Amino acid sequence: MCPARRRRLSILRCAGTLAKESEREGAHEVMRLVMVGGVAAGTKAASRARRVDPQAEITVYQEEPEPSISECGLPYFLSGTVSARDSLVARTPEDFAGKNIEVLVRHRVERIDAENKRLSIVNLATGERFDDHYDRLVIATGARAILPPITGADLDGVFRLRFLTDADRILEYVQKHSPKKAVMVGAGYIGLEVAENLHHLGMDVSLIEAAERVAVAYGPEVAERVERHLEEKGVRVHTGAKVEEFTGDGRVRGLRFGDRELEADLVVVGVGVKPSVELAKEAGAEIGATGAIRVDRRMKTSLPDVWAAGDCVETVNLASGQSAWVPLGDTANQMGRVAGTNAALGPEAALEFPGVLGSGIFKVFDLGVGKAGLSEQEAERAGFEVTSAGIETTSKAGYYPVAGRVFIKLICDSETGRLLGAEVAGDGADKLVDVCATAIWGRLSCPDLVNIDLAYAPPYGPVLSPVIQAATVLSGRL
Amino acid sequence: MCPARRRRLSILRCAGTLAKESEREGAHEVMRLVMVGGVAAGTKAASRARRVDPQAEITVYQEEPEPSISECGLPYFLSGTVSARDSLVARTPEDFAGKNIEVLVRHRVERIDAENKRLSIVNLATGERFDDHYDRLVIATGARAILPPITGADLDGVFRLRFLTDADRILEYVQKHSPKKAVMVGAGYIGLEVAENLHHLGMDVSLIEAAERVAVAYGPEVAERVERHLEEKGVRVHTGAKVEEFTGDGRVRGLRFGDRELEADLVVVGVGVKPSVELAKEAGAEIGATGAIRVDRRMKTSLPDVWAAGDCVETVNLASGQSAWVPLGDTANQMGRVAGTNAALGPEAALEFPGVLGSGIFKVFDLGVGKAGLSEQEAERAGFEVTSAGIETTSKAGYYPVAGRVFIKLICDSETGRLLGAEVAGDGADKLVDVCATAIWGRLSCPDLVNIDLAYAPPYGPVLSPVIQAATVLSGRL
Repeated sequence: MCPARRRRLSILRCAGTLAKESEREGAHEVMRLVMVGGVAAGTKAASRARRVDPQAEITVYQEEPEPSISECGLPYFLSGTVSARDSLVARTPEDFAGKNIEVLVRHRVERIDAENKRLSIVNLATGERFDDHYDRLVIATGARAILPPITGADLDGVFRLRFLTDADRILEYVQKHSPKKAVMVGAGYIGLEVAENLHHLGMDVSLIEAAERVAVAYGPEVAERVERHLEEKGVRVHTGAKVEEFTGDGRVRGLRFGDRELEADLVVVGVGVKPSVELAKEAGAEIGATGAIRVDRRMKTSLPDVWAAGDCVETVNLASGQSAWVPLGDTANQMGRVAGTNAALGPEAALEFPGVLGSGIFKVFDLGVGKAGLSEQEAERAGFEVTSAGIETTSKAGYYPVAGRVFIKLICDSETGRLLGAEVAGDGADKLVDVCATAIWGRLSCPDLVNIDLAYAPPYGPVLSPVIQAATVLSGRL
Repeated sequence: MCPARRRRLSILRCAGTLAKESEREGAHEVMRLVMVGGVAAGTKAASRARRVDPQAEITVYQEEPEPSISECGLPYFLSGTVSARDSLVARTPEDFAGKNIEVLVRHRVERIDAENKRLSIVNLATGERFDDHYDRLVIATGARAILPPITGADLDGVFRLRFLTDADRILEYVQKHSPKKAVMVGAGYIGLEVAENLHHLGMDVSLIEAAERVAVAYGPEVAERVERHLEEKGVRVHTGAKVEEFTGDGRVRGLRFGDRELEADLVVVGVGVKPSVELAKEAGAEIGATGAIRVDRRMKTSLPDVWAAGDCVETVNLASGQSAWVPLGDTANQMGRVAGTNAALGPEAALEFPGVLGSGIFKVFDLGVGKAGLSEQEAERAGFEVTSAGIETTSKAGYYPVAGRVFIKLICDSETGRLLGAEVAGDGADKLVDVCATAIWGRLSCPDLVNIDLAYAPPYGPVLSPVIQAATVLSGRL
């Protein structure tokens, strides 16, 4: 028997719920459910499966030393805004053991034999290899940071920020070398958040983005506001800037893009992630056009008794109707719930995950920026003829103190008036984005939003919500 | 010619857009549009009518000395949170004159002769009476405070708070008498806001409510949280307490309810409002079951060429499908837009106001409390068999600093799962209420909300929105 299996059985015996080992080993009366990956989707799937099936054997294999990490909190851990490292570990292996779920960290699943339902595993701590089997499997291998092939990317002081261990390494380096000049390469969600948090550590921060603007998932109106805000806060922004080389001698000392050079004694590279699908692909699972694992609405892969969830799968963007790969923690959580429930229930399970809207939000210093559905550019690429309206207005009743400003842009299908997307930047952005996300989810049109009954009081918004104001302007253009 | 009409024509001449007076007087080529009432709905209707028809003569008659008042800001004006009185006057008569809209304040319309399309008016400043005529009319007479027949209600120091002039009188009294003990009678939205703002003025405040709980439009879970919060802040709450007498000698000195007495040297009575429909009723307009003016979806009354909007009309609650009277500023504004547009366009106008959800929100000290749609009690009264789920959870990622707590309760139709209502109390309530309002507007079910793609980042919410968490719990009960 493999060591992992021995340990699991001892946990199960402790829980005191199961019959003698010998009986179980022989008859396989109890279903064995395995999750590959233990961040958001994998652990959620395991927890849901346990609720659905109190008897099943459930094991989670996880490469990193901690499962159930809140990855979205990592930028805030860098600056100390989130100070307690433990608080980022939503649940420890011991927590899961209490629910009779075995979580084996530092274990990599190297091969899935889908025909025989067997797994090849390596214990990264000991190097030991062993096999396991499953009755049903959930693949939740997530996504990993793209490492661009830049000379000098292996210099000391050049980091990624994907796992808690990455944050540990950055903080260790900061403590040891007290870097003064930091460069964040990549101005997506994580890049923008990291730039702010390095600034809070007292560093002189530059942000470098290869695309023509920061936050490229957004239209230029929002990107300009973000760039202006960053510059106001003292973060220098370089767009259309493709890093060609990190320079230094053992430790990083700078970087070069075009004919420009910047000094840097700390670099974080965050130019995107890609789905970790090799394991699934080698096992024969169908891969979608986005490069992520293809699943049906029940999160079932093309392999028998194998489900998948989280950053490694593709889904549908319900605003465009097209396949989409959207690696975000909340979506991974929701997918994990569906995959875990269905894997526990088996073929007759009918829980569905309908798709996503690509909703997202980030805070950069005092500016909240979010979107739901498609940007105008994304809607056009998806083949829609679009009508849009962007307005800037007060975020509270104009006479109420601390009324801020907010920009909101709505994008809709010119033919039907259906809301396709919304972008928001400014005070109270999170509320307006979620209202628009809900409207898109409900397939409401812009004219539907003109008379929507949202809740009004002076401390919470202007008498007519910015959503209503923008919808009114847009409806006049349809 | 009546003085008002003379003045109007002089304004029109100044605007330089119209032909000679004699021609116009004779032929009535230019449509004459009159609004009765100039707060939210009346002025919005006038402004929209002007945009639709640049030629029409537009006059607004308004009893109070200022039009276009932001009544919802009055509690905050009392405490000085909103310090500039002018800021509560959204637009002055001069502003309207600039748009070629005549606003006559301190003018009361005393009679509508719907057959001959004539109005009898009194100038409250001079006592002068005169007649006017209209081609099309918008009634926006609003609502007025209910004055319960309590002995001593006419004592000095007993106030209502409905108009800006009421606030002026309260502040004058406060300056003159420096009251120490204030009592707010009535714990609806305004009562709760006034209680807080009197407390901010340094008074010892008691809140008295005849119903069994404060904020009676909400379920007991929310009301308890509000009462607890008020007590923590030092406002004493008496529920089930019907005031029987105000005592004093010229000036108020106290009040009595049951066998209890309270000292008070300032009292504000806010036990509700009722629609001002006498004028419409006497003109023959149909009145609905709620006591407010009945209008169709185009805001048209039963009288020829007469529309109505705002706190004086009834509409439909789209959550219950039943007639509803919901006197709120944002709704009045939206209704005014529809009524003004349609009155300007005439019989062929097709703009519709679909109804309301009864969405509302208030802040009381540090607690935000709001609802959308029906409370559980309201849903049951409307004949639904309901399933509900209330949860208390963190309002941000648990590890993020300043994560607060929020209670959310969802109410849905047991048969179809359709969301009928939501109540929220706590941090970020306004966002969650508006998400739920949008979901009800889109006729989404609770199971639809389990996988909704809302925007997540640690500073803005937990990984799964409290709406999603509550919907998941509720869906498990269906």
